[in-house]
Amino acid sequence: MTENVSPLAPEHIAELPALEGVRIATAAAGIKYADRTDLMLMVFDRPATVAGVFTQSLCASAPVDFCRANLAGGAARALVVNSGNANAFTGKKGSEAARITAETAAAAVGCKLEEVFLASTGVIGEPMDAGAFADTLTALAKSADDAGWTDAARAIMTTDTYPKVTTRTAVIGGVEVRINGIAKGAGMIAPDMATMLSFVVTDADISGDALQSLLSEGVDSTFNAITVDSDTSTSDTLMLFATGAAAERGAPRISDANDPIIADFRSVLFDLLKDLAHQIVRDGEGARKMVEITVRGAASDAAAKTIALSIANSPLVKTAVAGEDANWGRIVMAVGKAGQQAHRDRLRIWFGDIRVAVDGERDPDYSEDAAAAVMKREKIDIAVDVGVSDGVATVWTCDLTKDYVAINGDYRS
Amino acid sequence: MTENVSPLAPEHIAELPALEGVRIATAAAGIKYADRTDLMLMVFDRPATVAGVFTQSLCASAPVDFCRANLAGGAARALVVNSGNANAFTGKKGSEAARITAETAAAAVGCKLEEVFLASTGVIGEPMDAGAFADTLTALAKSADDAGWTDAARAIMTTDTYPKVTTRTAVIGGVEVRINGIAKGAGMIAPDMATMLSFVVTDADISGDALQSLLSEGVDSTFNAITVDSDTSTSDTLMLFATGAAAERGAPRISDANDPIIADFRSVLFDLLKDLAHQIVRDGEGARKMVEITVRGAASDAAAKTIALSIANSPLVKTAVAGEDANWGRIVMAVGKAGQQAHRDRLRIWFGDIRVAVDGERDPDYSEDAAAAVMKREKIDIAVDVGVSDGVATVWTCDLTKDYVAINGDYRS
Repeated sequence: MTENVSPLAPEHIAELPALEGVRIATAAAGIKYADRTDLMLMVFDRPATVAGVFTQSLCASAPVDFCRANLAGGAARALVVNSGNANAFTGKKGSEAARITAETAAAAVGCKLEEVFLASTGVIGEPMDAGAFADTLTALAKSADDAGWTDAARAIMTTDTYPKVTTRTAVIGGVEVRINGIAKGAGMIAPDMATMLSFVVTDADISGDALQSLLSEGVDSTFNAITVDSDTSTSDTLMLFATGAAAERGAPRISDANDPIIADFRSVLFDLLKDLAHQIVRDGEGARKMVEITVRGAASDAAAKTIALSIANSPLVKTAVAGEDANWGRIVMAVGKAGQQAHRDRLRIWFGDIRVAVDGERDPDYSEDAAAAVMKREKIDIAVDVGVSDGVATVWTCDLTKDYVAINGDYRS
Repeated sequence: MTENVSPLAPEHIAELPALEGVRIATAAAGIKYADRTDLMLMVFDRPATVAGVFTQSLCASAPVDFCRANLAGGAARALVVNSGNANAFTGKKGSEAARITAETAAAAVGCKLEEVFLASTGVIGEPMDAGAFADTLTALAKSADDAGWTDAARAIMTTDTYPKVTTRTAVIGGVEVRINGIAKGAGMIAPDMATMLSFVVTDADISGDALQSLLSEGVDSTFNAITVDSDTSTSDTLMLFATGAAAERGAPRISDANDPIIADFRSVLFDLLKDLAHQIVRDGEGARKMVEITVRGAASDAAAKTIALSIANSPLVKTAVAGEDANWGRIVMAVGKAGQQAHRDRLRIWFGDIRVAVDGERDPDYSEDAAAAVMKREKIDIAVDVGVSDGVATVWTCDLTKDYVAINGDYRS
């Protein structure tokens, strides 16, 4: 998987610091891959509060069903994630496999079934033999320690070319708290849902309701504003856990997401979510360029986002970016098909700081060379003003390359 | 353009027979391409009735605006189509270029401006110099004759690898009438609009209103049921002309699209539209396989079509087909993201006649070898029953190959 690391990968993969109240272990359980880890257990020694957003797919996986049900309980003691098999579209056997995994984890950690959360990623439709890795899971509960965050990010990878990790500190009531996050993505990435797998943990002391409010608000302009290929997985899961361990150092308990005391935490959390989301785009299957698309002047922010995603999901725009072709005609096309109000004869388009179109036609000062120079960059900024009102949105995507086709033409076989 | 003809192309390109009341001529006007024809004039010696369906894009091209306006007049004497420049997003200069072209054609043919129809296909945003080919257009009006249908199909090509032509006869009131059609497509093809350029002419004697009803009805399960890449052009145009010349041979005048006397004509026309639509899919950019997707058991026919198009537009499904991978998990994914009711635990999926999934999981009798054999075919049939009600729809698409990326990565430059 990692022979060809994305050219957009960070130069160094950080080792995340320990986070109070969390222990982690990983193992090579042989679920599908040889010679790599594919099973991760995260243990919360005391019940953490928990929030989640999940795929909007009507064919959601068994682990997604399981997590949705357990979220109501409001407490997490264990998180089990495997790669190699999505345990999706596996019928009753799939629910059974999820239950067996959770029972094994509950017994190993010493908690209730309702305190276990699960995620699986990989092939859809292949029955998963949860019994086969039960012993491994039991052993992980014993070996888990406070290091291993980056190993955890590695264990949940599928076609990812690098592990996605990030960490931040924020201050709540004068006390420093930490937030660690990991994610995996690569293909089948699209917004309008939680998008891929990501797990974020803080030692702040935050109620489940407040945590859910923060996560639901934060996802809109981060995970739900990225797209690789417009496809939505059956398994997309983003969860946020709060161990509350920082309370021992004097961090106040937060039970209202709008409490002004968490202004810093909120902005740091959203920044961390954006970082993880961007890392997913930067590792989009076959990606060689990161594209930031900002739409202004739309009828509303929502309309702006629809137009921006129409651009971001257009195969013709994405192949033009891959070919370093400043083909702004395709931007016009994508604006036109978005189904949202746009004033054709007021439309303005920029590549980087080069305005290529104005008042519904090519900019009189347009320079092909200047636009071409922008297209050679590793990160391409595209801006569009649709001339209707003041709605604005930004989304991120990557280019569509021959490697995307190669990766997905023989992923399963 | 034609060095690499699609492997899905017909073995022979037919020369269409003459159609009473129509003369055609083509020329190499040097609009963009060298050494090939790029301008086509079709002359109706007596005013033909006319119907049209056009792109739903909010950034429609100048020729689309022009045709929409002229359609109200109800009579056609000339059709001018050029390739190489779409005359789209060209502002006032674009409307001016359309007007100059139409004025030149009207003068050459000897008709009113309101009787001229236009279409342009090619690069978006490049100003078109209509004056540059005015003399050529004038000459075409003199040289036009009743042959040249296939040449016309060639002149309107862009990235097409073969000209798309077809012909049928139908019987109205005991009199044989003819229908000839040409089309161009290749990329930027998606439903929910008229899709690409296609021009169909009959010598039947049919009122404009009846013609429009027939066309609007016929497009739903033909041109609006195909997709190459989900992108919608600014220029998509499908027009149907009726010269009425068959009236001299006793064909009755039709002024009601529901008149039982045109039952045969209707079914032959719809079959011809489907033929042209399929030819477009078979020449989808980079296509090596044709895919027919039928969804049954949906809440309504419209819901079935939405689900079928979600499958047909999924890059992951299309790359799996390219890789001859019977990856039905991606079908589940595409059903799940379609946003229409689907009963996960009743879902059934077939590749060809091989049932791969039943009751929400892999078919117990599933044979990877049998499914793999289906995927090696040139035409792949995918069927899905979503287990909700009795809505049904069929759509057509092609696979997504590295060649699609190559073609679109350097189309313009």
